[in-house]
Amino acid sequence: MTGTLTLVGLGPGDPNLLTPQAAAALADATDLVGYAPYLDRVAPGAAIRHPSDNRVELDRARHALTLAAAGRRVAVVSGGDAGVFAMASAVFEAVEHGPPTWRALDITVAPGISAMFAAAARLGAPLGHDFCAISLSDNLKPWPLVTDRLTAVANAGFVIALYNPASTARPWQLGAAFDLLRALLPGDTPVAFASAVTRPDERIRLTTLADADPAHADMRTLVLIGSAATRRIPGTDWIYAPRAVPVA
Amino acid sequence: MTGTLTLVGLGPGDPNLLTPQAAAALADATDLVGYAPYLDRVAPGAAIRHPSDNRVELDRARHALTLAAAGRRVAVVSGGDAGVFAMASAVFEAVEHGPPTWRALDITVAPGISAMFAAAARLGAPLGHDFCAISLSDNLKPWPLVTDRLTAVANAGFVIALYNPASTARPWQLGAAFDLLRALLPGDTPVAFASAVTRPDERIRLTTLADADPAHADMRTLVLIGSAATRRIPGTDWIYAPRAVPVA
Repeated sequence: MTGTLTLVGLGPGDPNLLTPQAAAALADATDLVGYAPYLDRVAPGAAIRHPSDNRVELDRARHALTLAAAGRRVAVVSGGDAGVFAMASAVFEAVEHGPPTWRALDITVAPGISAMFAAAARLGAPLGHDFCAISLSDNLKPWPLVTDRLTAVANAGFVIALYNPASTARPWQLGAAFDLLRALLPGDTPVAFASAVTRPDERIRLTTLADADPAHADMRTLVLIGSAATRRIPGTDWIYAPRAVPVA
Repeated sequence: MTGTLTLVGLGPGDPNLLTPQAAAALADATDLVGYAPYLDRVAPGAAIRHPSDNRVELDRARHALTLAAAGRRVAVVSGGDAGVFAMASAVFEAVEHGPPTWRALDITVAPGISAMFAAAARLGAPLGHDFCAISLSDNLKPWPLVTDRLTAVANAGFVIALYNPASTARPWQLGAAFDLLRALLPGDTPVAFASAVTRPDERIRLTTLADADPAHADMRTLVLIGSAATRRIPGTDWIYAPRAVPVA
């Protein structure tokens, strides 16, 4: 029996945004591994469920690889895209530092609709030109690196999607990021808080950098910060990135 | 009769990566609007097809909006995600500059699997930490802005996904970008050329920045450039972004 490991991106939550590839991998799995709230999104079936707590990504990855090496068909689930601030990095990190036999395992990454694309779709087309994605968490990187990166991309005109903007353990970072950005970008730069996008309790708030209140973000929020070029269409809640940047 | 306009991201090509939301919008449309090669990917049906040439995005957007304003159910198709260097920006730009009635139209963006996520899935988890997406085309922005942005993000440690890396009309830009990046990043930084990902003629080439040959890119290629932190797992073709950035 040959085991497999598939990293499955569940998308933002709406089953209509789950790809057929991801759905097939979930249906075929003998074992489902993931953070408990993501496993709860997977429809009931015969697979054995191995829910785990947050912040134990490497343990979870090693567990999944051990199951696959023992011949199981394992699906490791993440919200959004498994490759974006999610489980795929942890699994490959575990492969590199694990037994050499893990390098020969049959591993597939099934991509998903990432939170920033689901949020952007609700807002119009804010990611229609150069953009970046930054995790605001300083659990695994030093805070000065976060501020250096924010400064670099804001000055260079990128639209910014902020993942992990806030949590109970990280209450001040988003406010510090807004303060930093207010010194670099116009006050009327569009800022959006997109929470639980496509889920029943979805909430989208569109405001400006001058007025952005970090209290509107939690663990389920994607914060999107425009550039000086980002347009809000008057009389609507649509924002978009113009396709052309004129020669100055 | 009330018209609708849905911006549909077809994903990278494999029908197993088309979301159910996108499939439903295509099935429900009375009119399909898009660049001819993308329309060719849509399964035959009763909808009227309005294929157009490349580089006429605004004309195509206005045509689609005119049809929707006349009561048609219009699907505007893009490859990948409609919001990423694709038709959504053109449609909202046309809305802003068109008749005020267009601002009240029923417009939906159906997100898709973008080329960079499909490419990343084949490669491992190269987008597992902070990353950016840049269009290398200087058709609609000045080339010095492109080089400024590449410099900013390479120095700040972002992984870089390059859209529109090369075309017959833009033969030298990718080579210039590699030359610029070689002065900023280690020569062994992983570089991947991912062409026609998930389609029958898919081709993935994994190399290093020192050895990257711009001739391997064309209009159907996503070029992915790692950071100094990007790991290639020895003995494999997997690359990934470690989750943690140590304090220097």
